[in-house]
Amino acid sequence: MADSTVHHTWDVIVIGAGPVGENAADRVRKAGLTVAVVEKHLVGGECSFYACSPSKALLRPILATRASERVQGSEGARVDPAGVLARRDAWISGLSDEGAVGWLEHVGIDLLRGTGRLVGERRVEVDGRLFEARHAVIVCTGTSPLVPDLPGLREARPWTNREATTSRRVPDRLAILGGGAVACELAVVYAALGSMVTVIEQEEQLLGRSEAFAAEAVAESLRRQGVDVRLGAEATAVSRLGPTGEVTVELGGGGRISADELLVAVGRVPNTADLGLETVGAKTDDRGYLQVSEQMEVEGATGDRPWLYAVGDVNGIVLLTHMGKYQARACGDLVGARATDRPEDPRSMTPWALDLGAPQVVYTDPEVASAGLTEQQARERGIRVRVVDIPMDKAAGSGLQAEGYQGQARIVVDEDAGTLVGATFVGQDVAELVQPATVAITGRVPLATLWHAVPVFPAMSEIWLRLLEEYGL
Amino acid sequence: MADSTVHHTWDVIVIGAGPVGENAADRVRKAGLTVAVVEKHLVGGECSFYACSPSKALLRPILATRASERVQGSEGARVDPAGVLARRDAWISGLSDEGAVGWLEHVGIDLLRGTGRLVGERRVEVDGRLFEARHAVIVCTGTSPLVPDLPGLREARPWTNREATTSRRVPDRLAILGGGAVACELAVVYAALGSMVTVIEQEEQLLGRSEAFAAEAVAESLRRQGVDVRLGAEATAVSRLGPTGEVTVELGGGGRISADELLVAVGRVPNTADLGLETVGAKTDDRGYLQVSEQMEVEGATGDRPWLYAVGDVNGIVLLTHMGKYQARACGDLVGARATDRPEDPRSMTPWALDLGAPQVVYTDPEVASAGLTEQQARERGIRVRVVDIPMDKAAGSGLQAEGYQGQARIVVDEDAGTLVGATFVGQDVAELVQPATVAITGRVPLATLWHAVPVFPAMSEIWLRLLEEYGL
Repeated sequence: MADSTVHHTWDVIVIGAGPVGENAADRVRKAGLTVAVVEKHLVGGECSFYACSPSKALLRPILATRASERVQGSEGARVDPAGVLARRDAWISGLSDEGAVGWLEHVGIDLLRGTGRLVGERRVEVDGRLFEARHAVIVCTGTSPLVPDLPGLREARPWTNREATTSRRVPDRLAILGGGAVACELAVVYAALGSMVTVIEQEEQLLGRSEAFAAEAVAESLRRQGVDVRLGAEATAVSRLGPTGEVTVELGGGGRISADELLVAVGRVPNTADLGLETVGAKTDDRGYLQVSEQMEVEGATGDRPWLYAVGDVNGIVLLTHMGKYQARACGDLVGARATDRPEDPRSMTPWALDLGAPQVVYTDPEVASAGLTEQQARERGIRVRVVDIPMDKAAGSGLQAEGYQGQARIVVDEDAGTLVGATFVGQDVAELVQPATVAITGRVPLATLWHAVPVFPAMSEIWLRLLEEYGL
Repeated sequence: MADSTVHHTWDVIVIGAGPVGENAADRVRKAGLTVAVVEKHLVGGECSFYACSPSKALLRPILATRASERVQGSEGARVDPAGVLARRDAWISGLSDEGAVGWLEHVGIDLLRGTGRLVGERRVEVDGRLFEARHAVIVCTGTSPLVPDLPGLREARPWTNREATTSRRVPDRLAILGGGAVACELAVVYAALGSMVTVIEQEEQLLGRSEAFAAEAVAESLRRQGVDVRLGAEATAVSRLGPTGEVTVELGGGGRISADELLVAVGRVPNTADLGLETVGAKTDDRGYLQVSEQMEVEGATGDRPWLYAVGDVNGIVLLTHMGKYQARACGDLVGARATDRPEDPRSMTPWALDLGAPQVVYTDPEVASAGLTEQQARERGIRVRVVDIPMDKAAGSGLQAEGYQGQARIVVDEDAGTLVGATFVGQDVAELVQPATVAITGRVPLATLWHAVPVFPAMSEIWLRLLEEYGL
């Protein structure tokens, strides 16, 4: 049991020092407040060490090699697996967070190593020591991989994203449970590094929340990359032969898949189990995500005025690093304004982009880049929708980018408002094509105005012109 | 002398079948009018055969190879000069315009091969045959390379963009007169194909209209690619030893440069010299560009109502394919509305993006992508400007794209309006980063709204977040 002496008081304590916690702390600090972050593992968090950064570090040499292979006049490119892994190691600094810790010191954010736990209003215990926040505690503890209750699964010691993004070994055979972004990206990586990869997805399409045409393009292309993609396939049991032997996944309706490693990538669970939420009345939903107001204030928290906030994956609104950082900027500014009795910026009061549908890129081959709502999501919101679909090679820039370029573009238009509400691009090097959609959707720029936003010839961005032409402008 | 029989009458005659003429004709046709295009050389025009398309076709394998070389884990890529030239040949279809002609036939645009010349109101003579337009004639004759009056230059039979983009031979030494986009892009191409390249630019910076920091990055990088970049160097005379011998450029203040070929890329002249402009009173400026109203109506043209329009390079407003096509869409729609007594769409009445500063990409290594106004242009317009400059590697996506990524980003903000008026990006693979700027500038999206347009992590587009953070949002 901790003693009841408060060891130190800051204006704000942030629990969790991933990108979201770092951003929240940084905005608070910029408002002139003192702030500490509590981190039990690595400063920089899941994204920097076990997710976006290492997976993109792994994917980029693979995609750059293919881009070179696909252009006549560029010859001889090949993937060097040892180089790919070394690059990844450099990006995760061999799992050292020295760089991120140095940044905290440099900007003046204190670091508390250990497990943070709420023990009452504005009070946080870190490994037995008690600390206090004058104004606010911001919870940014994120999520962990969901390992479902499947007979034998835990005993089979499956990989999660953590092992798959940090492994120095390439298994001969890799089975992947799940078909979302993590599963698909890592399927591309391990297939390119030489594994025989099988993807086991229980739904009938990959990338559940994406447009179906995008998911189909990724499935088809994974198959061309030698990946065995099983859709509508339910894993019913898992077993492993001895400590390091073959792992076998039994499928419903018969059949089994044997592999050397099994990666589980079927979802996430919020890191709220041991946060002391009950000591302050904080509410979670049935999956354990913290319930928050539009201002990221945790519902149910004790006290006369808001002091407990939850930002990023842990509130379950949208599980994407950039959207978590966006929430963190808004929340950090709001906490700063409230603590210093400055007016609350409308911007920080309502991070309204959360309601527009998050932009996202899946760095598969082809890439899938989307923003706003899918057609189905827009229809479900009761929007009178018109959809425009065209092949990417309608823009000369695509064909110049790669021989035989294949891809597809879709925009979803709100016919009553005359504005864009969604866009999806599938193809090589489409990752950077989506930001204009994000700007247009967020800025509610009328299509008639977008007509004047002339894309450069012969950039791939000219697909925007083709989409508007096809729409009839 | 032509006989005075009108051989055929269309609703509209378009003189010049480059991309601009094609687009103008296509919009007119879509309005339900009959239309013919007159072309004396190749349907598809300068851009398709001698400019943007072949130069990008040449550049892409070079840039893709370097992109591969710059990522650890991708090995062995090299430029194959024969492959690069073969790719270019495929893109220009061996200088056959069969494909473009097929498209004209397919959509129902008639083609008149020959030299078009105005011979009175709505009358066009093509190689001695007389044709008439019921409603309008649209001049889209573009420009030709400027070969300046330099002693000995013409006699030295220099290359222009036409020879440089179509040559099957790589000269051992190539001297380039001029330092604009064409000069810089072709310097990259020929240096990569094995030429010793010298760029002779009379100004103190390359890429005259670009931000100085961008021009400096390109100069520095050309030098690293082995190009001898001479700034502030005035060519005073040129001579060639015999029909195929060495060509020598004399420089003011002494010095000379010898090469096997000399490329002249110092500017353009409008193709208006033999258009019969005097027969209809059409006005040109002192450089020969057709003078037009905001609706692209040629100033001074005879007649009670507008019938003569000039669109694209030939009106001198902005010499970029995509901006010419934009004018063509507006003008074609306007002509269509006027001819069919439909209301004139405000969009086609005022292509106002022409006033915002054109987006442009220079496909050098690094690329330069810009939209709107440079800092200097904004100040010259009396805008109260704030400029934000950051290195591209502030976005993690840049470092993931290439090891040791180098580049720079600038936004130019109108402090009174709270909106973006310009943006420039320099670096590898920045070509597609500029369209969000074009949308924001065109849509006059407030910076406070752009704050909600969350870029995807870890895309290079996250540079937008870094720019807004640096601005203070």
